Amino acid sequence: MTQFLRTRSKVVVLTHAKPDGDAVGSSTAVVRALNLAAGREVATAWHAGPMPPWYGPMMGDTPGLVLPREGPPADAEADAIVVVDTGSWPQLEHVRSWLSWQREQTLVLDHHVHGDADVGDQRIIDTSAASAAQVVAPLCVSLLGVKDVASLPQPIADALYLGVASDTGWFRHSNVSPAVFDFAAALLRAGARHVPLHQLTEQQEGESRLRLMARALESLRLLEGGTLAVMSLTLEDFAQTNAQPGESGGFVDLAMQIAKVRVSAVLTEVESREGGRLTKISLRSKEGDNAVDVNRLTRALGGGGHVRAAGARVAMTLAQTRDEIARLVREQEPK
Amino acid sequence: MTQFLRTRSKVVVLTHAKPDGDAVGSSTAVVRALNLAAGREVATAWHAGPMPPWYGPMMGDTPGLVLPREGPPADAEADAIVVVDTGSWPQLEHVRSWLSWQREQTLVLDHHVHGDADVGDQRIIDTSAASAAQVVAPLCVSLLGVKDVASLPQPIADALYLGVASDTGWFRHSNVSPAVFDFAAALLRAGARHVPLHQLTEQQEGESRLRLMARALESLRLLEGGTLAVMSLTLEDFAQTNAQPGESGGFVDLAMQIAKVRVSAVLTEVESREGGRLTKISLRSKEGDNAVDVNRLTRALGGGGHVRAAGARVAMTLAQTRDEIARLVREQEPK
Repeated sequence: MTQFLRTRSKVVVLTHAKPDGDAVGSSTAVVRALNLAAGREVATAWHAGPMPPWYGPMMGDTPGLVLPREGPPADAEADAIVVVDTGSWPQLEHVRSWLSWQREQTLVLDHHVHGDADVGDQRIIDTSAASAAQVVAPLCVSLLGVKDVASLPQPIADALYLGVASDTGWFRHSNVSPAVFDFAAALLRAGARHVPLHQLTEQQEGESRLRLMARALESLRLLEGGTLAVMSLTLEDFAQTNAQPGESGGFVDLAMQIAKVRVSAVLTEVESREGGRLTKISLRSKEGDNAVDVNRLTRALGGGGHVRAAGARVAMTLAQTRDEIARLVREQEPK
Repeated sequence: MTQFLRTRSKVVVLTHAKPDGDAVGSSTAVVRALNLAAGREVATAWHAGPMPPWYGPMMGDTPGLVLPREGPPADAEADAIVVVDTGSWPQLEHVRSWLSWQREQTLVLDHHVHGDADVGDQRIIDTSAASAAQVVAPLCVSLLGVKDVASLPQPIADALYLGVASDTGWFRHSNVSPAVFDFAAALLRAGARHVPLHQLTEQQEGESRLRLMARALESLRLLEGGTLAVMSLTLEDFAQTNAQPGESGGFVDLAMQIAKVRVSAVLTEVESREGGRLTKISLRSKEGDNAVDVNRLTRALGGGGHVRAAGARVAMTLAQTRDEIARLVREQEPK
């Protein structure tokens, strides 16, 4: 893989749409490593938005392109393509037509269980890795011919640190392992600037987010004997606090602080394409005896996700959705 | 130190009053190591409250005593005393009279800069350590005669993980270093159960905390061109949400999410001993150019702390305090 990439002069690095810290971090690391190794600009990252607020400062002068809605330019060419942090077509819709006929020169580096074998001929999939950053790091080491991760240049270490920190909930989630800490230690030794990275990505909000958070907390209802927490946000809540749709991200974790809560839900009103109102559901559940499987719960509503984190979008009012979730939680109670 | 402790049959392990995760974690680890090494109960932890809500489940059946307000029983005896996570008399007021004549058999293991040399004759102070857990770990290894931290028994690894995780803000603060991650990796290899520990310590709140958080967010004022965030909580806010004085802990971090905010303050009304009202100030500031020194700021109000985190207690109303903080922030602006 390294040898193949070393001989290329026009590499495009791709990742899933709406990229998170790991997608931006691991794609940026690969672009930086390729360009440093070549001593000139051979690689560019293509991203598809909406982009996180810290995207610009994180990228700095790393060659990157935020694709327009219609996808890549028809005449865009590449002699190698690297896809990171995804390997499945539904997450690559924005480049599918451009990418689908180039599988022979496409490499996939991912850590997700689900993927499509025909995205690229060469695939490195490590499902034991907590982040794509851990999967692309050996490639960066090899491209630059350095000894190990701790010897990587700081700009690459920064990008990889962003990846592993954000995909592990800044080292709090259940995917944290000895390998994650070994990796993070090596990145700090390489000079990764973790405090500015935390500031950059976790402290980039506007006043509107806190105004919206106040509304969400005011709406908190504790149901099912206090084990189900539901917060609800109307379109008016967003309008009156000047908040954008994405700004309620993470609110679902707030109620997880409450000891008795086993399932936390945030319901937000969104406009449908036809102008009506839908309800977007974000759900989390805690580990433990008789833990609620929110993937199963949201599948009953046409959504899905993971066992502990899932979502859906339903044609119901906020109140109807709240009742329906309570019913589905009850359904999972042991008989 | 190990040899001395091995020959003792009645060891008391002490730490600072109002113990946090590192104080409880490192003291518990030492007690567990001493008792495991002896094969019988030779050590007990003495703690002075108020204790965190997770204290009971964290201690489990580890010998521990929450001291009454009047201090240790007059006839309490020990043939060795280990003081962890502090080494200064003001933090040991609750045991001072009992401890002060026993310095010859007292060991201090700490990571703080300030300490009193006469607390104990044997002192291991490592100010480069992010947590006391890192300072007591080699003692645990040595007492048990195991190879390294990764070989420690799980109950000790759990206690040490709680220490390092809580003193680093769960790996987000500026004191995170390669050594911190190396230590955390070794503890996971020893079997530390990080997910239950996170649940135990970060998800033990009551409904009242979120009701109080809603009040705090509703009170948010952005001053000084949006760079100073101030939240204010009255005694009535606490009463109406059924919240206890400690439940506003951490609220000061909420406004740090806002990109423009450089200083965040939470002001809470508290009753004075004479029945009047005082204002308790909790302050944080961000790193960066012209960062505000909140230690200096609070010293002007009779308080103090660190450069980035400090507090004070003043005989002013909430509104007066807010104005005074704004004035002191302006005073630090470069001329």
